[in-house]
Amino acid sequence: AERGMAGSGWARAVRGLLLDVSGVLYDSGADGGVPIAGSAEAVRRIKASGLKLQLCTNETQATRENFVRKLRALGFDISVSEVTAPAPAACRLLRERGLRPHLLVHDDLVPEFADIDKTNPNCVVLGDAAENFTYANLNEAFRLLIGMEKPVLISLGKGRYYKETDGLKLDVGAYMKALEYACDVQAEVVGKPAKRFFESALAELGVPAEQAIMIGDDIVNDVGGAQQCGMRALQVRTGKYRPSDENHPEVKPDAYVNNLAEAVDIILQQL
Amino acid sequence: AERGMAGSGWARAVRGLLLDVSGVLYDSGADGGVPIAGSAEAVRRIKASGLKLQLCTNETQATRENFVRKLRALGFDISVSEVTAPAPAACRLLRERGLRPHLLVHDDLVPEFADIDKTNPNCVVLGDAAENFTYANLNEAFRLLIGMEKPVLISLGKGRYYKETDGLKLDVGAYMKALEYACDVQAEVVGKPAKRFFESALAELGVPAEQAIMIGDDIVNDVGGAQQCGMRALQVRTGKYRPSDENHPEVKPDAYVNNLAEAVDIILQQL
Repeated sequence: AERGMAGSGWARAVRGLLLDVSGVLYDSGADGGVPIAGSAEAVRRIKASGLKLQLCTNETQATRENFVRKLRALGFDISVSEVTAPAPAACRLLRERGLRPHLLVHDDLVPEFADIDKTNPNCVVLGDAAENFTYANLNEAFRLLIGMEKPVLISLGKGRYYKETDGLKLDVGAYMKALEYACDVQAEVVGKPAKRFFESALAELGVPAEQAIMIGDDIVNDVGGAQQCGMRALQVRTGKYRPSDENHPEVKPDAYVNNLAEAVDIILQQL
Repeated sequence: AERGMAGSGWARAVRGLLLDVSGVLYDSGADGGVPIAGSAEAVRRIKASGLKLQLCTNETQATRENFVRKLRALGFDISVSEVTAPAPAACRLLRERGLRPHLLVHDDLVPEFADIDKTNPNCVVLGDAAENFTYANLNEAFRLLIGMEKPVLISLGKGRYYKETDGLKLDVGAYMKALEYACDVQAEVVGKPAKRFFESALAELGVPAEQAIMIGDDIVNDVGGAQQCGMRALQVRTGKYRPSDENHPEVKPDAYVNNLAEAVDIILQQL
């Protein structure tokens, strides 16, 4: 506790926490993943303290319902309303702008778009489609885009790659770049680090930016993105964290913590 | 002929021609393609005139042998030694630098690399792999690259897309961009518009740049690339030519011709 208290001015006057999920709560994998030690207990302690909590994830391989089911099976006390994810944010954007998407996404994500008109598409929505990233599906999405007077490409994140138990996988950002180049367009990214996505998460958290702290393992998409919205942001030394992150040329977290449990220790001491 | 002669100073002192193939000699398609009117006769007239001739193509869906077989079936008097293509150029580069490729290419191109050591790969060679652009194959190429101390990605062209009888297809350049982004590397492009590739074609033509003319349908990869090597270059109004090409902000051909036959008319009148 003494070590944790040192220089912890960053933890003052906090009323809510935004938590990244993969690499903070658990490490993902084909087998469902493994919880990070102390994280399930940390979530319980946050809730018991009266702090507000919202998960802020770029997960697009499952509906929020299935994602929450997985987290609960791993021991996390989380409900669907406590998850901010790209697909619902994309649905709001589609409705606002009268866009009818062609979906190139994971099969398990499709139900998130059940209430959206998908006839006669006038945009393409790209998620981490995984096995659905076939030659035929990519050509189909490309042809629709290039055939539009003004192609609209909406990408659920822009990650380069991620790690699963059976190895590294290309993430949605790589396929986004392929379509951007072929169609000479720039994708609109929904999800972290988009400012609007963090603002949605804050609205769902019910706490203004200056009273919220983002906790994540991604120096750019979690920490940098949250700070751009006026939040404080911590980087955990779990998940995809690498020591070289601490020398990032542009992004400097308000603090480093070894893991979520340590972050919660320090924050609760300040309440 | 009178019209053709007007302003044809560009045709003087020419000793050899470099010809793009798809869109100049024929329009490609799953059924083997269709010759462009007058082009087979134009090739015969070039040869009868004593001008040297070399085809300069970014074709990577077949070995040169099979490519030439297809052209001969369409009526073109062409031999294998008259074709400069990216795969043999890539093989020279691989040998020079002691590189052992992992190939992500079309099945029909693989024999071009028969004599190249492919054990324990230290680079990835990317061609227009078409149906071989699967999720699994892309992840495999990505993992090999990201695992290299200094990733080397060699791309056989950087086209955005092309048209076949059954519709538009993403070309190798789109997949190149995906891997570049995921691995944070820049690909080395073999094929047009690489200067070195045009220089190989000129060496095989046996004519210096200032006595050669490139004839193609691609304003950037054919015309711009050839001019950067000191050649004159014509754009034909066949193949992927679009009227908007004539307002290209950076590239201006030495002349426009309606098709290869017209170009040959004008050139032969100057001899």
